[in-house]
This record gives sequence, structure tokens and C-alpha cells, in this order.
Amino acid sequence: MPADTWHSGRAAAPGLAAGPLFEMPEASAGRRMQGSAEQESEALRAALGRAIDDITILQQATSTDAAEILEFQVAMLSDDALAEPAMEQIAHGMAAEAAWREAMDAQIAGYASSSDEYFRARAGDLADMRDRVLDHLLGTADVVPPPGAIVLATDLAPSRFLAWDWSAGGGVALKGGSPTSHVAMLARARRVPMVVGLTLPARLPEKAGAATVLLDGAQGRVNLAPEAAEIAEFERRRAGELAAAAHWESFLHRPASTGSGERVLTQVNVADPAELDHLDPGICDGIGLVRTEFLFHDRAGLPDEDSQFAVYRRILDWAAGRPVTIRTLDAGGDKPIRGLTGESESNPFLGVRGIRLSLARTEVFRIQLRALARAAALGPLKVMLPMVTIPEEVSDTALLLRDEIAALGKAGIDCREPDLGIMVEVPAAALAVERFPAAFFSIGSNDLTQYVTAAARDITAVAALNDSANPAVLELIERVARFGRHTGREVSLCGDAGGDPAMIPLLLERGVRNLSMAPAMLARAKAVIAGWSGPLPS
Amino acid sequence: MPADTWHSGRAAAPGLAAGPLFEMPEASAGRRMQGSAEQESEALRAALGRAIDDITILQQATSTDAAEILEFQVAMLSDDALAEPAMEQIAHGMAAEAAWREAMDAQIAGYASSSDEYFRARAGDLADMRDRVLDHLLGTADVVPPPGAIVLATDLAPSRFLAWDWSAGGGVALKGGSPTSHVAMLARARRVPMVVGLTLPARLPEKAGAATVLLDGAQGRVNLAPEAAEIAEFERRRAGELAAAAHWESFLHRPASTGSGERVLTQVNVADPAELDHLDPGICDGIGLVRTEFLFHDRAGLPDEDSQFAVYRRILDWAAGRPVTIRTLDAGGDKPIRGLTGESESNPFLGVRGIRLSLARTEVFRIQLRALARAAALGPLKVMLPMVTIPEEVSDTALLLRDEIAALGKAGIDCREPDLGIMVEVPAAALAVERFPAAFFSIGSNDLTQYVTAAARDITAVAALNDSANPAVLELIERVARFGRHTGREVSLCGDAGGDPAMIPLLLERGVRNLSMAPAMLARAKAVIAGWSGPLPS
Repeated sequence: MPADTWHSGRAAAPGLAAGPLFEMPEASAGRRMQGSAEQESEALRAALGRAIDDITILQQATSTDAAEILEFQVAMLSDDALAEPAMEQIAHGMAAEAAWREAMDAQIAGYASSSDEYFRARAGDLADMRDRVLDHLLGTADVVPPPGAIVLATDLAPSRFLAWDWSAGGGVALKGGSPTSHVAMLARARRVPMVVGLTLPARLPEKAGAATVLLDGAQGRVNLAPEAAEIAEFERRRAGELAAAAHWESFLHRPASTGSGERVLTQVNVADPAELDHLDPGICDGIGLVRTEFLFHDRAGLPDEDSQFAVYRRILDWAAGRPVTIRTLDAGGDKPIRGLTGESESNPFLGVRGIRLSLARTEVFRIQLRALARAAALGPLKVMLPMVTIPEEVSDTALLLRDEIAALGKAGIDCREPDLGIMVEVPAAALAVERFPAAFFSIGSNDLTQYVTAAARDITAVAALNDSANPAVLELIERVARFGRHTGREVSLCGDAGGDPAMIPLLLERGVRNLSMAPAMLARAKAVIAGWSGPLPS
Repeated sequence: MPADTWHSGRAAAPGLAAGPLFEMPEASAGRRMQGSAEQESEALRAALGRAIDDITILQQATSTDAAEILEFQVAMLSDDALAEPAMEQIAHGMAAEAAWREAMDAQIAGYASSSDEYFRARAGDLADMRDRVLDHLLGTADVVPPPGAIVLATDLAPSRFLAWDWSAGGGVALKGGSPTSHVAMLARARRVPMVVGLTLPARLPEKAGAATVLLDGAQGRVNLAPEAAEIAEFERRRAGELAAAAHWESFLHRPASTGSGERVLTQVNVADPAELDHLDPGICDGIGLVRTEFLFHDRAGLPDEDSQFAVYRRILDWAAGRPVTIRTLDAGGDKPIRGLTGESESNPFLGVRGIRLSLARTEVFRIQLRALARAAALGPLKVMLPMVTIPEEVSDTALLLRDEIAALGKAGIDCREPDLGIMVEVPAAALAVERFPAAFFSIGSNDLTQYVTAAARDITAVAALNDSANPAVLELIERVARFGRHTGREVSLCGDAGGDPAMIPLLLERGVRNLSMAPAMLARAKAVIAGWSGPLPS
């Protein structure tokens, strides 16, 4: 057996990649000769200008959220106040790159140490800006990895990832980063294998770079010095996965149906409208879940009605007539939002979350309901409430919604009352589903599983108990599906189980015929559905 | 309407009390003349000796846990090292009481600031010791409130509470303290109304002390300056409650049965064996739940097999042939135990609790199983597992138990395999109860409710959702009761709902015929049962 030369990180985008290693030069790797104070300040000014040009071009090619982040960067870079401390140091004889780095690092440290999530996130933007300007100062701005390479970097700006050509394969290995970052989301959508949070030895093995390196995105690991036999074995696996993926892919553009010809609706879950950018709506029967937490992130305040409406309209436009189910804000102790969620709780998963928070903060909730009612006039939009526990939460929301619709009507603003449905994720709702005045039901298998098994999905030590295939969880799913069938009310399932090849047969067996999942899971899910044959339960 | 002269605290023991206010003098209230250094050190030594005598006498009259705490105090007080810093200050000319207070306060501050729960609890013991010695030094040791008085104090040592005569009524109002303290537990057991954590104005109203004051233990409030009309109204309520209590009391010593003559077993929950001290076992059909967390509190290490066995034997002795159900340790993130529970968790109610912790720490669990198997040889002892989620947790425990029984047998130690049952508190267990290889089931309505409604019992903002009368909770209770009836396996209920007069009719309606509750709830519960008539569901 060869020595284990795998290095572990966290899985960020699945898939296998093999290719030459390409180490992104850190901005600090570049070198230049220091000139006079005038030359240095001119160099910094020029680099700032080129960085602004870069971002402006990218911004025009991007949309929504990503564009908004870039706009923020342009505004900051265009403000003379940002470069002022660096210019002062240059006047005192410091080189442009050292002065800029020092000034930006001081600012970043201030943001990064903030106890506020929003400001901490801004530290990432500032680091992007620092590096982009340094790249121009030091001449490393135009580094492009060769096609098919495994790119090794500390972190990677979404704009750079977007600018490169991934059609020849390759992958990304980041020493920093997070699976929930923007760039990781893009990598999943574009099927570029990615590992983040990679721990590497201080000195890379000598072979690294010259030879082929291996990256396993699903397992979150990288091999920088594989033996020939390992490479061969990895390539066999990769070929197998590519063949399987090609097979699954052949199902993607067809409606899903079981082996016995029964139609199964397959919808997509959307956490951020940017995910839709390069997605063909023809692959799905609609959007089963639009999370709206993204609206509340990456911004200083709570979003106003018009900006929410604009986003909802854009999503309806994409869906082109297919149904779109938008979930009202599902924030809470576990997903804090500045200015909205309350004190930290002993057990945030059992606290003021989802509809509980919305009904406690109706001044914020009403804005979302207005924006939704306006968007509902434009297409088949449905509204879904998270964490519903008692029927009164639905009827109270319906009253608020009608109230806002009446106000919109009086003001002569176009709107329509959308169907109001609920997430079935609290056991009390699953057990007594017939009590809820809901037009449709969507089973949230992640939360349902964690409450039924009393095992949190973020506590590793109880991961084995947090099992959606637990007979009790399946019984509740079957029960809700049967209720829907018998009453003609739509029942879908939008938790991770809906896209899980191991769970899909169990869900079909229990009578679920409407699955919503991450877009990347659709092809394989349709293949699994096609391979399943069984009767609909009574 | 008179001005509102009620002051709020927290409910610690229910009941209404009206009587003269008796302010316990703070130890500092006493005065003495300072003598020579020799006289002062002699005075401190004498006070220490009298304090030790006090505690030794109390210790002989008390049992188990309380005695253990007192033993710790005697050991500390008898150690010359404790008084050494005070003696040194006295030699430098300080008065005995000032020197003692200063030396103890320094130690208490050290303990109180510890991040460790165990050491923080020791700070309370040291404060008791400080005050007891001060009482002897200052001549306030023998203060006894008049019978029927409302005692106002900062805190109250259990020993003092036990030493006083409560037969003429009266109550306790504490500015400090906690509803879970030892003295609060004693007050509930002896039905002395108690309020803790009382917030009072810096200056008490002038009338206070002379006239009658009112204490409402259930509502956790005190009126120090009631108007005559308020007193009359309060006395009417009190007379009504006393009459009701006398009516309920007439049921206490009879077996419980419904209005239609159907027998209902009523058992008691025990959190600490000290609760049994003044309790007649004839009032109950057995002990439905012995919590064993108390074994792990108030001590430096984990308890050994012999000390556990001694406690279990004592409980069996008390029960005198009635069944005793002992629950294995139910610790976890929410009930941390030094040296046993792990890191703090994001959602401790959904983490490593109960049987999950025991199976993760089998070296500790095996000791408890051995002690239980030995105690099972002495009487009708049953063993109950908390937080069971999957059947394997029961079968794994059964293997451990049999393993320990085999080892005991080889060593020639008397033991017997007790019936192994489970708490039904995780929805997965309630929904699939038939899958569990358990000899009996006890519904834990508190946890079951919090998981079914996804609303923690310690988060005030979701208290309205945390409702045991939720139809989904009742359905699960009915289902488990029916399963027990149809298979002949015992099903009881041991959560707070079991003793709640509003819940009892709902539980009977759903087929529960075995309720276990706090001893103080028994009389009224039996009266409620007697007032209910209905058929057993099919």
C-alpha cells in the first residue's frame, strides 16, 4: 500500500477531478521596484482604476445578488477616503503595495472582529478589494490557470471563478472558504468539484505541481502526490462517475416518471436567484421551494417591498409559467438576521423560528406579504409558511395577507391572493395535518427528521439517529401524502431526502409523487425514479 | 381600587399564606463589643464549635443527600486551615466577626466565580457556614419566627426551615434563592407556601411588619401593605383553597378510581430520596419515576456502585413492596454533570442526552446497571431508559445489563435481572412503539410535547406552543396507551401532565390508567380522577 498522501478539507462541490496542480500566486508573490513617492501614488491610483474597471465589467455580466456585492465594491473603491491612509504612508516613503496592504489589513481586522455577522461578511469583500488592487500593482491580475487544472488557492473570488473556462474539467482546492460561500454555490451549479478548508503541510511534496493531482469533491479531499496506481484507480472511478452522470443526464430534460409510467413531479429548491442564471427551466416542473433568507443577507437593512417584489418577479420570469412556491422568511435563533431575530436561545431549533418570528414581527412580515401578493398577480405564485405548529398560525397569516391585499387594492396596485400552504416539518403539523387550513403542503424532511428523532442535524454525535429513513419519519410522510391524495390537496417534499437517491424509492413507496430538490440532484433523481416500479399506496 | 402593593418574585411552593411579617435578621444585624485578641480568637473558636455541634445534630436527624452536604460542612469547619486567615487578622487587632466574614467572603468569591457548576454550588455551602458561625458570634443563632409568620429573608438554609414549626401556617419570602433549591423542594413537600427571587423596594412600607402581609406561592408574589379589603378577599380565597385542599386530602389515602369505579394507578415521581422522608407510602401505588441525576450532584466525583446501591435499597425499603421504577441517568447538554457530559451543544435538547450519553460512556453506565441489578434482588425494581429513539438502544442496554449480571453472579453477589422499560418522549418512539423490545412504557409528556411542537419548555416566547393538550400530543399518548392495552404491557405517564388537574381528564379519555406525579399533586389528582366518568377507549 502506498503511504496515504490525501489531505482533508470539507466537501463543497461533488465530483472527481484529476489534472496538473496550479497554485494561484498570492498577491504578495509579485515583485516590483519602488519608485518616487509621486510614482508610487500614481501606481496605486492606476491599480485602483483598473480594479474598478474589472468589477464594473463583471457587474454588467452578473445579476442580482452578486451584482449588488460588486456594486458595493465599486462604491468603496471609488471613494478617495479608502485609499487616503495608504496615500499618506506613500508620501512618507512607503512602497505603494506595502502601504495599500497595511491600510486595508487594518480595516479588515476591524470588520473581521465584529460580533455582527453582516460586518464580518464585509471583511471578505474588503479582502477581495485589497487583493484585486494588489494584483494590478504587482502584475498578477491576469493569471489564468490552464484548462483542466486543479486550482489551489487560499480563497477565490466568485468573479475569478466565473471568468475562467471549466469546460475541460479541473477543480478547485481552497485552504480557506466555506461550503456555504458564494463561490461554492457557483461550483455546485457549474459542476466543478471543489474542496474548501483544506489543511496542507507547510511544504508541499516535491512532486506536486508537475504530476497529476487528484481531487475528490464529495469526500472533500485532495491528493497532491498520488502513486501511478492511485491515479489509474481514480481515473477508473472518474470514468465510471462520468458514465453514470451521462446516463443520468439523459433523463434531465424529460419529465420524470416511474418505471411503471406514473408521472412524478420534480421541482427545484432555490436558495438564491443567482442559481437560476444558467439553468434551463425546462428541466423541472416548477420551483417547489424558494428560500427568502437571502433577501436579508448581504445588506445593511431589511429589504423594502419594491426590492422584494423585483426579486420575486425575476423568479417568476425564469419559471416561465411553471408554479413557483415562495417560502416566507425562515429565520430564527439558528439563522440570525441583524435587526430581526432576538436574543440567543438555549435551543434555537426549538425557539422563535420561521412563522413564529414573522408573527412576532408583523411589521416586517406585512412587507413580505405585500410584495408576494403583488408578484402573485404576475404568475402562478404560491406562498408557503415555515415551522407551522398550530392552525391559528395559518389563519392569522391569511388575515394579514387579506389585510395587505385590501390596502393594495385601495391604492390601485395590482395584486392577487396567492394560495397559502405550509411546510410540514413540526411533528404536530404532520400528525394533525387535517386541522390546517392550508391549500397545499410541503414536507420539510430535514426538520421533521430532527424533531421526530430529537436529534439535531448539526450535532455530529447524534448524526446516526438523525435518519430520514426512520420508520416513524416515513410513517408521517406517508400519512401526509395519503391525506393529500384523499383530499386533492397538493403534497410535495422539499427536504434533502427529496434529492437523495437512497431515499427516493422509500418516498415513492410511501406515496410521495412530487419532489423538490437542489437543481444539481435532478438528473440522477429522475433516473432513480425511472428505475423504480411500484403501486401507489391506498 | 387600592394601589398595587404586590411585589413579584418566582413561585417556589404553591399555596396562600397570610400573617405577620417576620424579617430574619441578617447575621450582620447582631452587635457585640470587641475584646482583646485572645478573647476574639476564643470567641471565634467557640462559635465554630457551636456551629459544628448544630450541624452534627441536624445531620443525625437528616438522611442521604442533605446529610452528605452537612458532612462536608462539618469537615470544612473542623479543619483549622479554614479559620487560619481569620485568626491571623484577629492577631493583628481585627474583631472576630469582621475577620471571619472577610476571610470567608474571599473564599466564597473564588468559588462563586468558577466556571464549574460544582464549585459554584460549593459557594452556597460556604455562605451557609459563614452565616452560621456569624449567628453564633453575634447571638442571632437562636432566632425563631413566631408560628404563622411570613418569614422574609435573603436566603434560608434547609436546616433552619426544618427546625421551625409550620403547623400554624405561615410562609417564606426569599429575596434570593431558586425554585429548584433544596429549601424550595422541602417547602413543596411540607406545603409551606414559598416565593423566591423577590424584588423589594429598598425601604419596606411602614405598615409592613405590624399588620398582616399576604403571600401567594402559586403566583410568586407578596403583598407587604395590603388594604383591609384585600386581606378579606385574600382570606376568602385562602379559606376556599383550604376547603378544597381538605376535600382533596380526603382522597389521598384511598386508591384512585374514576367516577364509574375504574381503578387508576397513581404513583409518585421522586427527584431526590429526601422527598420520601416524611411521606407515607400508603398514599401511592408505587414510584413511577425515580430520577437518578441527584446521585451525580453535590459531589466531587461520580458515585460508586455501593453508594448507588445503598440509595436504591433505601427507596425500595420506603416503597415496602410497591413497584419502584428507577430511570437511568438522564443527563446531557441541558443537565451537565462534571466529568461526564461533553462540550456544550448548539441545541442540547436535541443532543447527547439520556441513554445516548449512557451508551457513549458505558464505563459509567455499567456501574449504574450493576447497582440496579443488585437492588433488583431486594424488591420489585424496574429499570427505565430515558430518551430512547431506536430499538437498538434498548437491546444494547439489555446486553450490557446481562453482561454485568453475569459478572455479579460469578463474583457470588446477589442480583436479579430487572424489567427493562423505556420513557416514551422522543416522537420516533411514540410513533413506532411496537418496534421497541421494552417490558413497559412510561410517557414523558414534557419532552414529548416539546419535540412534537418543536417548542422548548425553557423558551418563554414559545410557551403557548408548548402545550401537552395539542391534539398531536394527545394522539401519540392515546396510541401508546392503546398499544399497551392490546399487548398487556404496562403504560404509565410521568410528565407534569400526569398531575395537572386540567390534563388528567384528557389523559383518562385517551386511555391512560397509570399516572405518576409529584407527591404534592396526588390528593387533588385522585379527586379529579374520582370526578371523571368515561369509558375506556377501544
